[in-house]
Amino acid sequence: MAERRIVESLVKERSAWPHEHVSLVLLVIDGVGDVRHPDFGMRTPLEAAQTPNLDELAPRSALGRVMPVDYGITPGSGPAHLGLFGYDPREVEIGRGVLEALGLDMDLKTGDVAARANFCTISGGLVVDRRAGRPATQVSAEKCKLLQQELGRIEDVEVIVQPGKGHRFAVLFRGPGLAEGVSDTDPHENGQPLHEAISLRPEAEKTARIVGEFQRRAEEVLSGHEPLNGILMRGIAERPSLPGMQERFGLRAATIATYPMYRGLAKLAGMELLQTGPRVADEFRCYAESKDDYDYHYIHVKATDEAAEDGDFDRKVSAIEEVDRHLPIIVEKMPDALAITGDHSTPCCMKLHSWHPVPLLLHSPRCDAGGQRRFTEHECSEGSLGIFLAMHLMSLLMANAGLLDKFGA
Amino acid sequence: MAERRIVESLVKERSAWPHEHVSLVLLVIDGVGDVRHPDFGMRTPLEAAQTPNLDELAPRSALGRVMPVDYGITPGSGPAHLGLFGYDPREVEIGRGVLEALGLDMDLKTGDVAARANFCTISGGLVVDRRAGRPATQVSAEKCKLLQQELGRIEDVEVIVQPGKGHRFAVLFRGPGLAEGVSDTDPHENGQPLHEAISLRPEAEKTARIVGEFQRRAEEVLSGHEPLNGILMRGIAERPSLPGMQERFGLRAATIATYPMYRGLAKLAGMELLQTGPRVADEFRCYAESKDDYDYHYIHVKATDEAAEDGDFDRKVSAIEEVDRHLPIIVEKMPDALAITGDHSTPCCMKLHSWHPVPLLLHSPRCDAGGQRRFTEHECSEGSLGIFLAMHLMSLLMANAGLLDKFGA
Repeated sequence: MAERRIVESLVKERSAWPHEHVSLVLLVIDGVGDVRHPDFGMRTPLEAAQTPNLDELAPRSALGRVMPVDYGITPGSGPAHLGLFGYDPREVEIGRGVLEALGLDMDLKTGDVAARANFCTISGGLVVDRRAGRPATQVSAEKCKLLQQELGRIEDVEVIVQPGKGHRFAVLFRGPGLAEGVSDTDPHENGQPLHEAISLRPEAEKTARIVGEFQRRAEEVLSGHEPLNGILMRGIAERPSLPGMQERFGLRAATIATYPMYRGLAKLAGMELLQTGPRVADEFRCYAESKDDYDYHYIHVKATDEAAEDGDFDRKVSAIEEVDRHLPIIVEKMPDALAITGDHSTPCCMKLHSWHPVPLLLHSPRCDAGGQRRFTEHECSEGSLGIFLAMHLMSLLMANAGLLDKFGA
Repeated sequence: MAERRIVESLVKERSAWPHEHVSLVLLVIDGVGDVRHPDFGMRTPLEAAQTPNLDELAPRSALGRVMPVDYGITPGSGPAHLGLFGYDPREVEIGRGVLEALGLDMDLKTGDVAARANFCTISGGLVVDRRAGRPATQVSAEKCKLLQQELGRIEDVEVIVQPGKGHRFAVLFRGPGLAEGVSDTDPHENGQPLHEAISLRPEAEKTARIVGEFQRRAEEVLSGHEPLNGILMRGIAERPSLPGMQERFGLRAATIATYPMYRGLAKLAGMELLQTGPRVADEFRCYAESKDDYDYHYIHVKATDEAAEDGDFDRKVSAIEEVDRHLPIIVEKMPDALAITGDHSTPCCMKLHSWHPVPLLLHSPRCDAGGQRRFTEHECSEGSLGIFLAMHLMSLLMANAGLLDKFGA
């Protein structure tokens, strides 16, 4: 807390900024970090990739590695991004229901409560299949439509049902007096009855009642729709209320991301969402075109993580090379401070997120360039920034752009 | 605190472990870290030693340096080991009396209170020699036997007297209602009267009374035994009650160590003590033979520290080479995660423990090997793990062995 409070207290008035248009850029190459493994020739995708533009930038930049949450902790995308946005992910929590709703591009407002939900098959009072025979997405979407029509309002609470993939969907409750702290109705195994939605704290009593009523009436609506004749809910959570980029750092912040979850996370941090085409080049051009309208751009590239989660080393290399190819679109606009990193590592040999610190390149005219030759895991380990918690990166970006006053006299 | 609570909350159920028998190894080469000094040709013992087996392992491992307690803090063996076992040594304290008792191989139970004690010479109501003329160990041991016979019980408290070296011994008090918080009876200089044992907090009143009674009656028993005609006590402390390896991390943990103090420290952390022969090869074979019976082995090698405390560079080099020679006994069993480090540095030029961060080698198939060539202080400084507090090592071992769930979604 201490360091962040200090940084927030040192943010300069806009009138004292070094120039009128300041541009900070956080380029997140999802899951970019990797490890050397014998199955992949003991080199990482960053080491294997041809990256002439990063190679040109690295010797003039400060390198280091950021640890998303803490030593040995493998983060989900939520905590990983919170860290990069300058929050302490060990303190700020985003519930599963909220993350699911963000991932389905739902518009969450303060006070909203969201749940992850499944269609399930109920027989003789028991959940006999928690996934309702794994229906096609289209089949589930029709049932979601039906639930939305019949159960759009309970008491004074608006209910929004959003289909997901297969048997999955999300439910959002919007109305006065809602709060998280309600137990799952999901029994978490087949052959059990549904659980009752119980309030785990006094503030959540109304929410538990509404959730329970939705659960009960959904079964009535779905009666006869076997195998999708029931629902179950879990991860019932409130949209966290975070101080945003403007409030904390005085920055007009914008997001360039194609996937709903990342757009949703950025929105939680008080960023505006920009319209972008699907390719890396589109995203980078979106930055170039909107540079002067914002002080901070978060740009998210997804393909690296997808390749790594498939264990596809060559595709991860290609995804890195695509980023490198278009990097001049950003660099030529000369942002005042540019950070290139990932939200976490995703080693191809693991096909999973991991705890390994993520390579970081920080470029500004006063970045403390260390002369390392390439933006790779191990050159970054030897860089001038060392290994540090992701939550500190925001302070470094602000400092490099000249936006922080001196601390003390 | 936060990070450790997070890690503990992420420990996988045993049924979700990557395979049935997981083996974590912490090999502690006591005092292994050193510094380059002109008196020793500006190279450290690790740099001077012939270590073909470590040299083979290093490029395939992640290197770094661990700081036992904090910047500039030279740890005793107690705090140094607490850190390696995953506790924060800045928060958990082990009193001197307890450490002394552990070092004399006494069996401490929860609620026990232990004191360091000296025989001393008393004359005219004053302590005239705090070390009673430095008697031979055998002489002291006989007096300890006498005290044990005469003073084995005070009120409902069992008293156990254990001889140490020379004038030193330990006293253990076991019974209901004991607590630490009693002042020393040792005046800490000659020519002063003994101090009274005073309770420094209400919970310690009974303990102060028992300690005072033991002190008084010991003088009666020793009357006429000049120069060993009195005792003094200091560092009166309670056995700390720590959550153990099983409770915190779900691990069946075992210790392979030949010195009582290290066995005692491991016991405080909830580890079982294994029987081992005295040589390094015996200790390593003990691991190989018991590998499948435990999830975690702490192995302690003492000779490096002893050599360094004597300022004997060549003997420290030999001790390192002995570890290296037998290392294949461990490596061939392919533990899932292997950490090789020390509890602290003991530079030969200082002949003392020091604050310098200790070299660390962490090996697993997904350790993030950095390609450094050797396990030395300065190659470790450039490794992928950076320099970090020893208390985080446990999290890294768990992560490398695949025992931790993802944090958040």
